[in-house]
Amino acid sequence: MKRNDFAGRKVLITGGLGFIGSNLAHALVKRKADVTLIDSMIPDFGGNEANVEDIKHKVRISYTDMRSFALPYIIKNQDIIFNLAGQISHMDSMKDPVTDLEINAKSQLHLLESCRYHNPSVKIIYASTRQIYGKTKQKPPINEDHPIDPTDINGINKLSGELFHSLYHKVFGIKTVSLRLTNCYGPRQLIRHDRQGFIAWFINRTVLNKEIKLYGDGLQIRDFTYIDDVVDAFLRVAVESNADGQVYNLGGIRPYSLLEVAKILKRINPKLKISKIPFPRERKKIDIGNYVGDWSKIHKDIGWKPKIDLEMGLKKTLTYFRKNLSNYL
Amino acid sequence: MKRNDFAGRKVLITGGLGFIGSNLAHALVKRKADVTLIDSMIPDFGGNEANVEDIKHKVRISYTDMRSFALPYIIKNQDIIFNLAGQISHMDSMKDPVTDLEINAKSQLHLLESCRYHNPSVKIIYASTRQIYGKTKQKPPINEDHPIDPTDINGINKLSGELFHSLYHKVFGIKTVSLRLTNCYGPRQLIRHDRQGFIAWFINRTVLNKEIKLYGDGLQIRDFTYIDDVVDAFLRVAVESNADGQVYNLGGIRPYSLLEVAKILKRINPKLKISKIPFPRERKKIDIGNYVGDWSKIHKDIGWKPKIDLEMGLKKTLTYFRKNLSNYL
Repeated sequence: MKRNDFAGRKVLITGGLGFIGSNLAHALVKRKADVTLIDSMIPDFGGNEANVEDIKHKVRISYTDMRSFALPYIIKNQDIIFNLAGQISHMDSMKDPVTDLEINAKSQLHLLESCRYHNPSVKIIYASTRQIYGKTKQKPPINEDHPIDPTDINGINKLSGELFHSLYHKVFGIKTVSLRLTNCYGPRQLIRHDRQGFIAWFINRTVLNKEIKLYGDGLQIRDFTYIDDVVDAFLRVAVESNADGQVYNLGGIRPYSLLEVAKILKRINPKLKISKIPFPRERKKIDIGNYVGDWSKIHKDIGWKPKIDLEMGLKKTLTYFRKNLSNYL
Repeated sequence: MKRNDFAGRKVLITGGLGFIGSNLAHALVKRKADVTLIDSMIPDFGGNEANVEDIKHKVRISYTDMRSFALPYIIKNQDIIFNLAGQISHMDSMKDPVTDLEINAKSQLHLLESCRYHNPSVKIIYASTRQIYGKTKQKPPINEDHPIDPTDINGINKLSGELFHSLYHKVFGIKTVSLRLTNCYGPRQLIRHDRQGFIAWFINRTVLNKEIKLYGDGLQIRDFTYIDDVVDAFLRVAVESNADGQVYNLGGIRPYSLLEVAKILKRINPKLKISKIPFPRERKKIDIGNYVGDWSKIHKDIGWKPKIDLEMGLKKTLTYFRKNLSNYL
């Protein structure tokens, strides 16, 4: 990836005021891209005006929903679409499955149909998720060939979204790439509630000097990708044509148990308390167990690897949220 | 399965005026069930009033869409739901993907959500499809553990529908069973156009003394299930509690090439003409190649096997359509 790969290029970010979208927007403004953000600003999804406050005069912002009939007018001249819009709460998907389907499956079809008819030469990078593997059945780390078996509504609808992107590549020749994300964390993340993954909530508890309640023994294994590494992956696949049509896992430098994560946070903020509680029943039913992703495919194809280790990433994240806390509570 | 298993039981059939739905309705009326049919009657999907003309005073018919807010009132007292409503044309799904998603994914969520809140003890038998396997990667016959990789929009949305049913069993304890159907054929099938599978169209061509145009060499392999065998499978899984939560392939007595099928039809009606044409490009792109299903799991679990061979089934089918042709053109 060269420094000027994005200079002057027309780039659209869906979910552009959200966590990953807004961080991508900052990286692209720095690289002198011509950036448009769209965001439906549905409450609790992650869109936050504070995320783009410092670049708002350097980007175009369109407050709209991907289901809008106006979508063709927004996408028609774009070179690249970073497609981050989504509902990411597993718990919310079980409470309101139809909304999850609307956002994660139907909206994706709208975007792809718009591109099919109004901009078939665009490149689209889609934010998929390791959730589609479900409870893993093979020895970790898990690669992209692992069987698909999502454990919740969100996983099923995200799977549809990814399959739609792959299909539009195969059948209509649209350049699509899907990145299967695992626990991403960093500045500009939604940390206000506990329904968008435990890492966001752990960060909330730490910055507020509160208590982390681990479910069960806290020995569940996960991997983590710091936002700068996530952004790096999105930018790289956007400019590498041999990524077209591919699906890639992201991952972390090494896996951690949730207890280890909590202990790192306690080292950073000794006022944090840690306790253990029984696994809540409605969460246990959709829990995926341990997960460690194999990211060797994207490393081999385009040279990506995670560079920021968890302790360093969490320190940067806490520094950001301490400075900007009022925008995130 | 005992003769009186359905006597007096409240049974709902979604897509009840369609091909499989109406044949099930006839079987259930004979077995003295208390039958309700719902059908959205969306043009070209398969709903046909002629399919239930002779039993219309013995069943309740509700012309409604599964997305209706009235659905809870229809499902709340049912013992069993045969869930046949769907959009089954692969070609149509590629022309109008959003409608396919509405019918095959969103409508299924509406039904399951209704049952979750208003009738959690109901049993649901869902009509899934072998389309979700896509181009098969293993030596035939293909069993239920084959990787999932649908080749078209219809396959992706039908997959969502099946995954939703399995999830509502696992998480909410609703008794669901999915049958992955392969080419079904028989009386009351939609044969008016060529977009609901080649076997329906071959039957149309035969009954009208026209020409079957085989794509390529006509040596593509498929299996076939006659409607009486399909109905038998639905009835059996409905009363067998060890089918709850399961997914089963159906299949045929033996596989045939499309050329063989055409030749059988020509034996039945010598006026039929057979020719070969190049594979149309838009069909080739979503074609699944050869397919033979392994139905040993449902045979082992509940004793089902296909009984009607293809020549016998096609003879019965043609006799029906010759007698009732005006209702199907």
